[in-house]
Parts: sequence; structure tokens; C-alpha cells
Amino acid sequence: MRNPQLNKHGELTHLLTIEGLPRDIVTHILDTAESFVPLAERDVKKLPLLRGKSVFNLFFENSTRTRTTFEIAAKRLSADVYNLNINASSTSKGESLLDTINNLSAMQADMFVVRHASSGAPHLIAQHVAPHLHVINAGDGRHAHPTQGLLDMYTIRHYKKEFHNLRVAIVGDILHSRVARSDIHALSTLGVPEIRAIGPLTLLPAGMEQMGVKVYTDMEEGLRGVDVIIMLRLQNERMRGALLPSAQEYFKHYGLTQEKLALAAPDAIVMHPGPMNRGVEIESAVADGKQAVILNQVTFGIAVRMAVMSIVGGA
Amino acid sequence: MRNPQLNKHGELTHLLTIEGLPRDIVTHILDTAESFVPLAERDVKKLPLLRGKSVFNLFFENSTRTRTTFEIAAKRLSADVYNLNINASSTSKGESLLDTINNLSAMQADMFVVRHASSGAPHLIAQHVAPHLHVINAGDGRHAHPTQGLLDMYTIRHYKKEFHNLRVAIVGDILHSRVARSDIHALSTLGVPEIRAIGPLTLLPAGMEQMGVKVYTDMEEGLRGVDVIIMLRLQNERMRGALLPSAQEYFKHYGLTQEKLALAAPDAIVMHPGPMNRGVEIESAVADGKQAVILNQVTFGIAVRMAVMSIVGGA
Amino acid sequence: MRNPQLNKHGELTHLLTIEGLPRDIVTHILDTAESFVPLAERDVKKLPLLRGKSVFNLFFENSTRTRTTFEIAAKRLSADVYNLNINASSTSKGESLLDTINNLSAMQADMFVVRHASSGAPHLIAQHVAPHLHVINAGDGRHAHPTQGLLDMYTIRHYKKEFHNLRVAIVGDILHSRVARSDIHALSTLGVPEIRAIGPLTLLPAGMEQMGVKVYTDMEEGLRGVDVIIMLRLQNERMRGALLPSAQEYFKHYGLTQEKLALAAPDAIVMHPGPMNRGVEIESAVADGKQAVILNQVTFGIAVRMAVMSIVGGA
Repeated sequence: MRNPQLNKHGELTHLLTIEGLPRDIVTHILDTAESFVPLAERDVKKLPLLRGKSVFNLFFENSTRTRTTFEIAAKRLSADVYNLNINASSTSKGESLLDTINNLSAMQADMFVVRHASSGAPHLIAQHVAPHLHVINAGDGRHAHPTQGLLDMYTIRHYKKEFHNLRVAIVGDILHSRVARSDIHALSTLGVPEIRAIGPLTLLPAGMEQMGVKVYTDMEEGLRGVDVIIMLRLQNERMRGALLPSAQEYFKHYGLTQEKLALAAPDAIVMHPGPMNRGVEIESAVADGKQAVILNQVTFGIAVRMAVMSIVGGA
Repeated sequence: MRNPQLNKHGELTHLLTIEGLPRDIVTHILDTAESFVPLAERDVKKLPLLRGKSVFNLFFENSTRTRTTFEIAAKRLSADVYNLNINASSTSKGESLLDTINNLSAMQADMFVVRHASSGAPHLIAQHVAPHLHVINAGDGRHAHPTQGLLDMYTIRHYKKEFHNLRVAIVGDILHSRVARSDIHALSTLGVPEIRAIGPLTLLPAGMEQMGVKVYTDMEEGLRGVDVIIMLRLQNERMRGALLPSAQEYFKHYGLTQEKLALAAPDAIVMHPGPMNRGVEIESAVADGKQAVILNQVTFGIAVRMAVMSIVGGA
Repeated sequence: MRNPQLNKHGELTHLLTIEGLPRDIVTHILDTAESFVPLAERDVKKLPLLRGKSVFNLFFENSTRTRTTFEIAAKRLSADVYNLNINASSTSKGESLLDTINNLSAMQADMFVVRHASSGAPHLIAQHVAPHLHVINAGDGRHAHPTQGLLDMYTIRHYKKEFHNLRVAIVGDILHSRVARSDIHALSTLGVPEIRAIGPLTLLPAGMEQMGVKVYTDMEEGLRGVDVIIMLRLQNERMRGALLPSAQEYFKHYGLTQEKLALAAPDAIVMHPGPMNRGVEIESAVADGKQAVILNQVTFGIAVRMAVMSIVGGA
């Protein structure tokens, strides 16, 4: 079966997940993003690559922040952007997802950026749309958040240059995290030899070892000697649920403090997809410390999303 | 009394209703739309006709879909578009409709696209604004939805070429439908010799015959030999109310199935303003069948709205 | 301590409050606005001064009207505008204001337009952001609404030419009004010799006399001979609260009627920041009368906001 993200020429036409994405395509995205980074220094931060194209932000699940990063990326490429909060509209009228998509396609959309609470919704849409239409997954359920995975890879490459000699630790609620899933696939694809997953057993999915990931429930042991630490956001609802004793208890065991950070390589970088819970998964001194590259991730994210949009838009 | 939609030169300056609109103006809109359709095939789908103009989408009643089609049309004409959800703002502060309009006019708006739950609100606004300001009715109460009526006419002309030899059936909740009202006026204006209204007596308004419309409560009888079938959306609230026994019962009598469709002319087209209730007013096999032109209506709708905006904007 | 609104060259880099703003800067804003007013008469109402810049409307408190005026001003300067309703997003996820701001800054924003229910929030943000980023206060708590103050000054200058010979009365709920506070500072800075505050004792703040303001609880006495009357909106919640007997009672004592207006100078102008409560703080005959310049304020407001944005954007 053909990879649903690639067209018949093997070019990226949708970005749905990093799983199964050829390494040269991932690298091409990162290289393209790198060419866009200097744009931010220019007075007019725009390129005409998507001029006259219509990009629809279809957010079936609200996320002002992620939506805004895609809106910025699209406008930097000179596209026209339409923000559709879909909960508030058609679906409340009982229309099916595919009828909604057909309808919006008929408005001559060129690209759909889709955030959906259900895993697989962007795949379903991509299978359904006409060939000239491109779908970008902006986060679906617990499944994938590929642009976050790619901007994490961009950040790592920016600071560490190479992937083949790295130890990378992902810390926290891996079970419920689409970011973790996308990061693990991307790190594997790019040849990172050692990927570690750190968290309480209740928040670690089964089958990590089969994916080549080393599992640690002891954070201090897991951080020893790593070059990159990717902290995950602890969802508020987990803290209130039965999976965890309390935020204080969680911080004690899995919060990244300066003491724990000292166990990693001296030049280790600290990443976080945001928004942060200070004092829950990360200490403020670390979040604001000189090893943190959390805000740089956001900045690189604009260039990475521009890269994805311009690549699929050209396919 | 002068037609409130025309300026003193007889040019279209507002689009409020199709009722009373001269036939040559309707035809001019359709012809202009036709000239815009090829634009969709071009790489840059934009024209500079409204460059620097400010189009305000004033949606006093929420409708993401309709709002988006106007936003697309305006941006394709290079206008600046402002989306105002008015419920959430001024009216909740107790300001009158006309004070709100005065205020927005003073922001140097060039065009108001108005959706309002009260019939006549766009008329009231049009009577009130300065001469350089243009009002487009995007649906007011049960009264009119003229751009939907025009895109329906565009679609019919596209597939049937002429109006003078057609039998057109409108099926469903005609009583509450501004789409039906706009379609009936447009079909009359364009010289369609036979307009049929099909539905249960509780959903048919009085006085249809005086408008030159033939009334049928038996759908099979009403569909016999027609060239065009316009299905209407059955509002959910009707199904729950006292007007109808149940959705199943409704579908049995007034749902468009392949069997019933076979009674129409062999090349009859099936239209629907969307969003569809599959299995209520229309069977999926018909909605997705080769006689359905429902998604084409959406595409033509962009060109028709561009035509209306560019014509009133030039008046 | 340096004025937080000025950079080290003494140029305006943020607009947070009119209090403490040098007179030549206020005058420069008004002069710049004046140069933008003729733009409204042109066919294409746009200038390229902020082309490629990203203006973020950060409305932590909803205000469609004020947000729209800033959106218009930014688009007239060719900026890209991003509307963020922040209540609905990050803060609900427990992120701190400064983390939200850091995050948005990292998206390479050039300007933040901030509306916030807490007095001082825009100051806090301005102290925190990188030097290339500019903050404009669009209303913070009861503290300040500087662009409203400036557009009021523009309006007064437009009709009265000079400030040094004026008597200006501000009428209504001065205690809760950020507009009143900004107006008083601006009038003082521009050398208005007589500023009067008129209202019931329960709605007048303490210490007005120390600010050089004459206090009147008798409206007829306070209006005698004034050249400018600035009416304030009476918030609905005040009318329901313990501070006032009733809207009718308030209108009787502090509503601006034609009779009371006759006590002012014959060429006095009547201003109001909107939205108006007709029949509460102002009689319709006055609101629509020939001395009212309320809608002109709105129009001038676009030019004034363009002026502020282009000045801070160039600093």
C-alpha cells in the first residue's frame, strides 16, 4: 500500500504523521526550514510562495496558539488564511465530517490544516480530498503532532548538528502525548541511537521497547548523560484523575530541577512543547535557565511550518 | 417609490432581495459570475477590483459556512475583510442596531455583508447608511437569501442553458425557508414557466398559487417530468416540533430517493443549499449520485458572491 | 526612573498611558494622525508603513468594536493582523501571563495591542518584551485607554483648533472610567486651563482637585459656558448596583438633554466614547443633534491608531 502522505512521484503531498516518512523527506523539510529562518531578520518577513492560495485552519478542537503559528506561517508565504472554528458550526447542525470537508473543498481550498480530537481524522480527510488539495495534521487525538515533532528535530539539529551520536530523553506523560509519539518516530528516522522514555508506569504506554525506546521510571537514572531532554506537559486532567497522586508528588519524582538536570551532559538542552506548568513538570530556574531552548522551539516552529506548507503546496 | 437596491442611475447598489430585481440586473450578475469562474483554474486566484476596500461581515446570527464564502469572495477581489460576531459585542451592551451600524460606518467601511435573524434588518441598514456604503443580505429571518438564490440560478443556467422551457420543483420546508422564497422570485424573474412547491401542508405557506407556483403535497406527482429539483434542508427544530410526526415519516413522504428521482426528467439535476440531513430530506445515493450538483453550487457560489460584491462596489 | 514608554532616544516605543507623556509626543501623534485623515478619501486607503509586520491583537477582555478599530488601522498600514482571544486559550490552561507573552513574542510578533481587565497588565508586558517589540494599551482595567484619550484630543483640536482657551466638562461615571482618566491627563498635558468633572458623589473619585480638576455634582452649574462636553457611558452594572437609584433618576440629574446643553457655549461640541445608552446618559435629540461629533470621533480614531502604530513601529 502506498504511503498516503506521498503522491505518485514520491513527493510529500500531505503531512499526517512522521511514522513511515522517508528520512530524506524529513531532512528536506528541515533544510527548507533552515532557508526560511533568516527571513525573520528581514524588514518584510514575507515570501510569495503561496500567493493567492487559500489555507483553511480547520480546528475541530480549540487551540489558539497552534492555530496562530500556522496562520503566521501561511501569511508569511502570502497565502489567504481562513480560520474556521468547526465545533461552532456545521457539525452542530448534524452534518458529517466528510460532507463538511466536501463543502469546504468546493470553496476551492488549497490546503487544510486540521486539528481534531479524534486520532485519524486528518488521514480520513486526506484520503477523501481531490489531488490538488493538501492536508496538514495539526494534532489528532493521542496519535500525532508531526509539525511539533519536526520543529523539535529542527531545534535538536540546530544545537547538536548531528543525530547519530545523541542520547535523547523524553520525560512525563508519554501515554497520552501525541508530541512524544511524533518525536520518537522522528528521532528513530533520523538515526538517534538512544531514545529514553522517563515517567511513572501509569503514564508509559506498553510496547516502548519494541520501538527501540529504553524505559525508565527513575528519572535520575534516565537523565544520566543525555544530550537532549524533552519535557512533556502534564495535562491538568491527569493531575485530578486516578493516574497520579498529586502535582507535588509528581514534581518531586518527575519535575525537572537544576539538581536533576546536572545529571545530564553539561551541554544538554531542555525542550518543552508548551504551555508549561511551572512547578509541576519543570522548575522555573530550569525553564528560564541557559540550557532551556523552549522559546527557540517556538521561533523555529514558524520556519518549519512554512517549510511544510511550501513543500506540500508545491507537490 | 424607488427600488431601495438601485441607485438613481438604476444600478445595483445593495443586494437585499431578488424580489423586484430587474431581469437584466439578475442576468448581469450571472454573466459577471461566469467571467470569474475561470479564475479558480489560475495559479493566483485574485483580482484587484476591491483593493483597499473594507468589507465587514456582520453576522448577527452565526454561520461559519456562509461567512467563509463571503470572506473568500472578498479576499479574491483583494478587499480587506473584517469578521464581526455582533452577538458577542455591542448588542449585548444594549446599543441599538442603528447605533452599531453608524459606528461601523464611521470606521469607513465600504460594504456590509449582513446575516440577521430578523427579516428586514438588511433593508433597515441599507436605508440608513451613507450613499458610498453597500449592503449585501446574507440571509435575514425567513425573508430572503438572495446570493443563495442567485447561485442557484447560476447553477441551473450552467446545466440547462435556458430558463424559458424548464419545470423546477422546490421540495420541503418552504414555509420557513428564505432560500425557497429567493429561488421562487428568481425563477419567476428569469421566466421559468413552471415552478412547483412540494411539501406537507404544514410546511407550505399560504398564497403560493398567487405567486404562480403550483402546490403539491404528493411528492411523486410533483416530481413528474421536472428538469430541476431543489431540495431544502429540514431544520432540526422542525423535526422535534409539532409540525412533523418524525424524521423517518418525513423521509418516507418527502425524502428524495433514487426511486422518486426516476420520476423526473432523465437529465434532471438535484440541488441542495446545504448542510444536508442525509436520510431525512435526501438519500445518500442521490446526494452522491451523478445527477447531484450540490458541490458545484458551492463552487459557483464563490463566483456569484464575487460578482455581487464587484458590481455593488462599482456602483 | 526612565519613562517606560520611551526608548533611550526619548522616542515613543510603547503607548501605555497618557500620564507623563511629553506634550511634543502627544502633538506629534495628533499631527501624524492629521496626515492620515485624507487617506480615507482615496480609492485605495492603504500605506505600506508596516508591510510584513505582525500585529497581535491580544484581547484578554472581549471588545469587538475596539479590536476592529485596531485591526483596521493595522491593515491600512499593510500589517498582518492576528486576533487572539486569550481567555479562550492559554490562560485557561494555567499558563502565566508572562509565559503567554514570551511564547507569542517568540512567534516574531512586532506589536502587541493589549486589552486587559487588570490595570497595569500592558505595563507589565512592556517591561518584559524584547526591545524590538512594541506594546499599545487598548484599555486596562480602570487605569487608562490612551488611544481613546488621544482620539478625543484629536477631535477637540479639529473643532476648536487650540487647547489653551478651553473649558472642558467630563460627565458621568468618572470613578470607573479609564476614558476619563486618559482624557484628564491629555487635557492637562495640552494646556487646557479648565477641566470640570460632573457626576454624583458616588461616581467621582477622590483627589480630583489635586489633579487640577473642578468638581461639580450639579450638572447645570458644571456645564455653564463649557466649549467641550465629554459624556461617559454608564455601565449597566452600575445601574443595577447600589451606587445609583435608577436609570431614570440618573438621566434626570446627569443625562445630557437639549435644555442642559443650552447652558454650554453656543458652539460647544458633544462627545461620547460609545456605545451610548440613549435615554440614560444622553438624550437622542442631543446624540443625533448638530453639536454631536460622536461618529467623527470614531473616524478620527482610525487615523489616530494608525499614527500611534506607525510611530511606535518606527521607533
